[in-house]
Amino acid sequence: MRSVNYSQFSFFNIYFPAEFVVHVEINRPRKLNAFNKETWTQLRDIFHLISTDPNVRVAILSGAGERAFTSGLELSPGLLAMLNGGDYEEERARFMTRRVIRDFQDSISSIENCSKPVIGLAHGVAFGLGIDILSATDIRICTSDVRFSVKEVDIALAADIGTLQRLPKVVNSLSWCKDVVYTARVFGAQEAHVQGFVSNVVASKEEGLEAAFELAKIIVAKSPVAVQGSKHLINYSRDRTVQDGLEYTATWNAFAIGKDMKDAVASTMSKSKPQYGKL
Amino acid sequence: MRSVNYSQFSFFNIYFPAEFVVHVEINRPRKLNAFNKETWTQLRDIFHLISTDPNVRVAILSGAGERAFTSGLELSPGLLAMLNGGDYEEERARFMTRRVIRDFQDSISSIENCSKPVIGLAHGVAFGLGIDILSATDIRICTSDVRFSVKEVDIALAADIGTLQRLPKVVNSLSWCKDVVYTARVFGAQEAHVQGFVSNVVASKEEGLEAAFELAKIIVAKSPVAVQGSKHLINYSRDRTVQDGLEYTATWNAFAIGKDMKDAVASTMSKSKPQYGKL
Amino acid sequence: MRSVNYSQFSFFNIYFPAEFVVHVEINRPRKLNAFNKETWTQLRDIFHLISTDPNVRVAILSGAGERAFTSGLELSPGLLAMLNGGDYEEERARFMTRRVIRDFQDSISSIENCSKPVIGLAHGVAFGLGIDILSATDIRICTSDVRFSVKEVDIALAADIGTLQRLPKVVNSLSWCKDVVYTARVFGAQEAHVQGFVSNVVASKEEGLEAAFELAKIIVAKSPVAVQGSKHLINYSRDRTVQDGLEYTATWNAFAIGKDMKDAVASTMSKSKPQYGKL
Amino acid sequence: MRSVNYSQFSFFNIYFPAEFVVHVEINRPRKLNAFNKETWTQLRDIFHLISTDPNVRVAILSGAGERAFTSGLELSPGLLAMLNGGDYEEERARFMTRRVIRDFQDSISSIENCSKPVIGLAHGVAFGLGIDILSATDIRICTSDVRFSVKEVDIALAADIGTLQRLPKVVNSLSWCKDVVYTARVFGAQEAHVQGFVSNVVASKEEGLEAAFELAKIIVAKSPVAVQGSKHLINYSRDRTVQDGLEYTATWNAFAIGKDMKDAVASTMSKSKPQYGKL
Amino acid sequence: MRSVNYSQFSFFNIYFPAEFVVHVEINRPRKLNAFNKETWTQLRDIFHLISTDPNVRVAILSGAGERAFTSGLELSPGLLAMLNGGDYEEERARFMTRRVIRDFQDSISSIENCSKPVIGLAHGVAFGLGIDILSATDIRICTSDVRFSVKEVDIALAADIGTLQRLPKVVNSLSWCKDVVYTARVFGAQEAHVQGFVSNVVASKEEGLEAAFELAKIIVAKSPVAVQGSKHLINYSRDRTVQDGLEYTATWNAFAIGKDMKDAVASTMSKSKPQYGKL
Amino acid sequence: MRSVNYSQFSFFNIYFPAEFVVHVEINRPRKLNAFNKETWTQLRDIFHLISTDPNVRVAILSGAGERAFTSGLELSPGLLAMLNGGDYEEERARFMTRRVIRDFQDSISSIENCSKPVIGLAHGVAFGLGIDILSATDIRICTSDVRFSVKEVDIALAADIGTLQRLPKVVNSLSWCKDVVYTARVFGAQEAHVQGFVSNVVASKEEGLEAAFELAKIIVAKSPVAVQGSKHLINYSRDRTVQDGLEYTATWNAFAIGKDMKDAVASTMSKSKPQYGKL
Repeated sequence: MRSVNYSQFSFFNIYFPAEFVVHVEINRPRKLNAFNKETWTQLRDIFHLISTDPNVRVAILSGAGERAFTSGLELSPGLLAMLNGGDYEEERARFMTRRVIRDFQDSISSIENCSKPVIGLAHGVAFGLGIDILSATDIRICTSDVRFSVKEVDIALAADIGTLQRLPKVVNSLSWCKDVVYTARVFGAQEAHVQGFVSNVVASKEEGLEAAFELAKIIVAKSPVAVQGSKHLINYSRDRTVQDGLEYTATWNAFAIGKDMKDAVASTMSKSKPQYGKL
Repeated sequence: MRSVNYSQFSFFNIYFPAEFVVHVEINRPRKLNAFNKETWTQLRDIFHLISTDPNVRVAILSGAGERAFTSGLELSPGLLAMLNGGDYEEERARFMTRRVIRDFQDSISSIENCSKPVIGLAHGVAFGLGIDILSATDIRICTSDVRFSVKEVDIALAADIGTLQRLPKVVNSLSWCKDVVYTARVFGAQEAHVQGFVSNVVASKEEGLEAAFELAKIIVAKSPVAVQGSKHLINYSRDRTVQDGLEYTATWNAFAIGKDMKDAVASTMSKSKPQYGKL
Repeated sequence: MRSVNYSQFSFFNIYFPAEFVVHVEINRPRKLNAFNKETWTQLRDIFHLISTDPNVRVAILSGAGERAFTSGLELSPGLLAMLNGGDYEEERARFMTRRVIRDFQDSISSIENCSKPVIGLAHGVAFGLGIDILSATDIRICTSDVRFSVKEVDIALAADIGTLQRLPKVVNSLSWCKDVVYTARVFGAQEAHVQGFVSNVVASKEEGLEAAFELAKIIVAKSPVAVQGSKHLINYSRDRTVQDGLEYTATWNAFAIGKDMKDAVASTMSKSKPQYGKL
Repeated sequence: MRSVNYSQFSFFNIYFPAEFVVHVEINRPRKLNAFNKETWTQLRDIFHLISTDPNVRVAILSGAGERAFTSGLELSPGLLAMLNGGDYEEERARFMTRRVIRDFQDSISSIENCSKPVIGLAHGVAFGLGIDILSATDIRICTSDVRFSVKEVDIALAADIGTLQRLPKVVNSLSWCKDVVYTARVFGAQEAHVQGFVSNVVASKEEGLEAAFELAKIIVAKSPVAVQGSKHLINYSRDRTVQDGLEYTATWNAFAIGKDMKDAVASTMSKSKPQYGKL
Repeated sequence: MRSVNYSQFSFFNIYFPAEFVVHVEINRPRKLNAFNKETWTQLRDIFHLISTDPNVRVAILSGAGERAFTSGLELSPGLLAMLNGGDYEEERARFMTRRVIRDFQDSISSIENCSKPVIGLAHGVAFGLGIDILSATDIRICTSDVRFSVKEVDIALAADIGTLQRLPKVVNSLSWCKDVVYTARVFGAQEAHVQGFVSNVVASKEEGLEAAFELAKIIVAKSPVAVQGSKHLINYSRDRTVQDGLEYTATWNAFAIGKDMKDAVASTMSKSKPQYGKL
Repeated sequence: MRSVNYSQFSFFNIYFPAEFVVHVEINRPRKLNAFNKETWTQLRDIFHLISTDPNVRVAILSGAGERAFTSGLELSPGLLAMLNGGDYEEERARFMTRRVIRDFQDSISSIENCSKPVIGLAHGVAFGLGIDILSATDIRICTSDVRFSVKEVDIALAADIGTLQRLPKVVNSLSWCKDVVYTARVFGAQEAHVQGFVSNVVASKEEGLEAAFELAKIIVAKSPVAVQGSKHLINYSRDRTVQDGLEYTATWNAFAIGKDMKDAVASTMSKSKPQYGKL
């Protein structure tokens, strides 16, 4: 029986397609899965739950329906007012703007900070916030008909919830990256693949889910101690000197090496499949 | 009427091919656009002017003539003497060497620090300093006949005005990068494209200028608040942790969100084209 | 006559195929060149010697025999016990684990810290530790039949001697990188090339050595002041802001510019080949 | 009427001794105000509330009763078991230990991250956790009979919730700091004052509260935009280069300069007392 | 004859009281040496000149007249308008505010970036900007009647040109530092001395100048290579890890050790006074 | 029986005055304990041995004889030649200078990197290198007749083996620090105490050793897991943001909490004295 309660989220479908695999689906298909304040709050809460749920080892994130991963932020009057600081005046309004952005950033960072790997499946429209979210996932797959756009400049905004920080660190060419950021032009699966934004292109959303499930099944069979350590240590080291990354990693493995390694080595010897405890 | 005076630069041609677009052309074609001390001083002054000129939103940088973007530093006796500390002796000469390099670095960094995006168009010969300069631009285009070389080791020099800092951060493969740095070998458009150094290859310099103008026109139609913010924030975040990048960005947008976003959203609603104020 | 004594290393063959070129070969072919404690100690000692040996300007690293670059760490009972802290109990055992990892990291970092460029030639099996080692080399070549794997999660280990720090900084796509880290799946030459992990693919180990020798010969003809400076400055700058990299580089070249540059410029004028002093 | 509800905290008394001033009192006097898990969770919740409560501009933190600010962590069997990873085994237990420490750190950091200045009043016993908490406050006052101790080594623990990070950055001498950390010896008001740990020594807790109220009243009369900005910017700059601190500060004040400054200047001219809006 | 022209600065008196010593005096005594835009521009220009003037080895900075070092920023309507972005509207005005602050910061940082040591002599009133300036000098002396205040919060401003970055790094106690920042209270010579803000207290401005001249004379007799290196390396290392500071310093001294050291050692042997070349 | 061999060091006396305490004495009293190359090599080797010797928990460092802790570097012709790059010419000589400095730095850093606390006892003359060494110890005591000097500028040298990095981080006032660095003036016990350079002043070397032994005895009775962790974590955190220090510390204690804490708590309950295992 599942002890963590995932039923409380109105804007997301949450499935468990296989042992240790959770599938999170943004569920506002009529709005092209656009995000309002409630949606981003729920996103954070979901990935906080996943992060410490011992029954989950890998998460898959997609949009509901065929048309969109997400069309981005829903530009409702309420949300625009909130971004402009609500009823406060002048610098107080701007303190509020800053607070709203920090809160929204925390929501997207919950994917990166989630201790379990997250596979992003992009399909249909993946605009604006869609790029922010996907850049925060670990492994990205897309369908051949996907349409990506770093859309923010089209609403006169420098993207502020992760794209400008993470996109240049996950792709190939900074020249290409600035091109798509400054122009907000739409690009497709082929270009995303060549630039390394996605590492796999599939024919349809259905195939994409299958590919994600296959990948997830491989990962959940590995030691969660090793997989979760790897995610944390890659992200930590990305932001620091090689020397600092090495020292932190040695300190990490001083506690993380133990029973799982013994079991893995024993399984290798006996050619059996290791069974790792939950984490 | 243009209030900023760009007519004072003997080594550069400065054109205004379209509203908000400036085209800066290195103009020593007989010397293959090689740089002496005066040239790099003028380069800095030009990009300082552009940085705060409200009539410019995008700059394009190319070489005059067909033969070269630039062949690099002009190794005149005077310049070599200056690099070796002039008439000073021993450690004092080396203080002077350090000062000259710092001054030259500031010149090249003026492109990166310029608040407006800079599109580099490489053509013909782009050797040594040419790579330093191009690495500091935002978006790089090249002609199919371009010949690049990180030439510095051929004059027994570890490149010291930007290539070793920026090139590894704008391209794909560090293995490739060290290959071209240690060997000073010439590489062409195809290789530059695969490695992500350029994001577009064109048939001729003329086509290259057209491509650059097209790109520039798209960018100048966007909010300069959003575009200039994006450039600054990408460069800031490249050098820092994702967390620091996010915090700085939230603080930035606390002041940068305002009228432009309201205009952009209103234009989207009314399907009109937004007109943004100068910046 | 060679003054540095390289004859003391039981697990390595050391050749001098050309002036200024050393070829280091991991020599446990019956064990697929797997590493035990003694092997990694010798690796560090060799690269310390090379780093200050004026008769070496470039090193090439490969495995002995056709079958493997290296199959990785030899999981002997003794080594596993050592990784688990030996006879100590609880937190003391874990202090020992940390110390062993730090020592092992130092061994691999000796390749990066070696002042001379190191060309890695991957062939046959290059698993686990093989990726850690190759990521620490400067330029990577592989044979078309190579089989790479970031194998560590298969022994329930987050890779802790360099792969998680360096691999993301030498390749294209972080999505691809996490894919191969989390799954430990085998990938080949083509994939390694597209991702930028290697910059050259050759048909056989023999051809690979020839390609490495050719590359080495080009590099050893350059000023060692310039080449060693370039290696140091690229690695230093990779880990720091562009500004810090520039300032450090100016300080470096304040002492590194001198006779070699004068000789190089004179040779260019006289169209002769410069002869640089040893370093 | 107060809109924020502070009545829900069983282990804290919360008073409002003056407009814009909150007084938070650790309230387990029979246990010398020792902390269990619930206490540190409440501490975090309280400072989160204060951070965005527009009716609070300064917080004062003390212990209930005369005998102790806090004697530190309550070493109950349950808490010790939790610190040792609960029922999990080996490396999983240690993942849990790490998670508990991170959670506890977040609680203490909530004082530093609280946007309003926090004045710590130390009195009686202030051991272990008491130093962690006080180091995270902004301004420290103590009574002449206070007894401080960095107590952690006496339970065989390297202090892990802030003292080792913050204490060396708030006091004078690193030699003194390591002395009191390694020996866990008790030190008094005089020594704390000379070392700069406290900036004011008072005769009794009663006098201390008066001094804190006086100080608080001065601060609450200032612009909260300026005071909260100052706290944030000092803490941000403490951890970064002067250059980074300056750049961040310029970006911050680009939004924070506004109506309050106009009001302040106008008040200065008219020799009236400015009334600032809530924040 | 002096080749550098210091006569062009209307708001400063510039004296040369001894060989290699320059005395810079803020010269608006009727305005209590308050700063307007022109004043801060001149300050920067002066310290840029000093930084590379081989005839200067130490600078002394004081205010003209007895009444004030400086009363801080002159809050004229023009300056307030400029700080508020001039005629621009909304976010554009805030871009301008940011630009003004950055420009002002550069002015103050010119003291820190000046390659020669700067001795600050505080006397009379040293409010607001006075603390920013003094924190950027190397060695601080004050008269016994000095009145210091981190005045910025009294105009509803978080100090933004250096105090929040530098003051905590030059004094003793962070508790004291935040106290004087949040309250803007006046403090005197004794308190400044105990906290380490000044290292010498003298009876009058006259005595202070004498003390400064004495100190300057000692410093100008030392090797300028060593003194200027020490200033640069202390400031560099203050902002970085000890390891990075050490590596940078080794690289620095690789060029800075030379003739001066030989002369110094020879002088020690012969008990003569070394004469060092200009720098 | 002692398994580590400390008898091989010609320039040091090594005593074991109490269980777990080692006393290292610089032993060239006729040369005022000046350092030549061999001395600094031995210093490093000794602290490497101590760092992993389970029979040592605290080290005390002093000079032999009454006259000097150390008078600093011995300026022999051979050492000066080595500092100037030996027989190499121009930039090669400067590579050698850099290598010598790096090697010397490593020697001094071995005190900071030693996992056990080091108490420095300064007496008599403590010039130049003496300050570098003392700044790298953890706790400093001095005799009332000590004479300190940051002597390096007197040989035209910017101190390059630690003083410029560490001294500003262990004392009170940066103004004072720059004063003694730029002037090389002698200062005594009282000044060192007020500035926090030493935390204890004693009447004589004999009393100093007694004070150091008393302090050492207190520390060796504590858990070495806690003490060594505290040293490492304070030094790590000194160089990084508070956030990074906290995260690293949580990871460290995830392995370091264990049997010692259980023993410590049990001892507290039973009011017995805990006996900790060696480390």
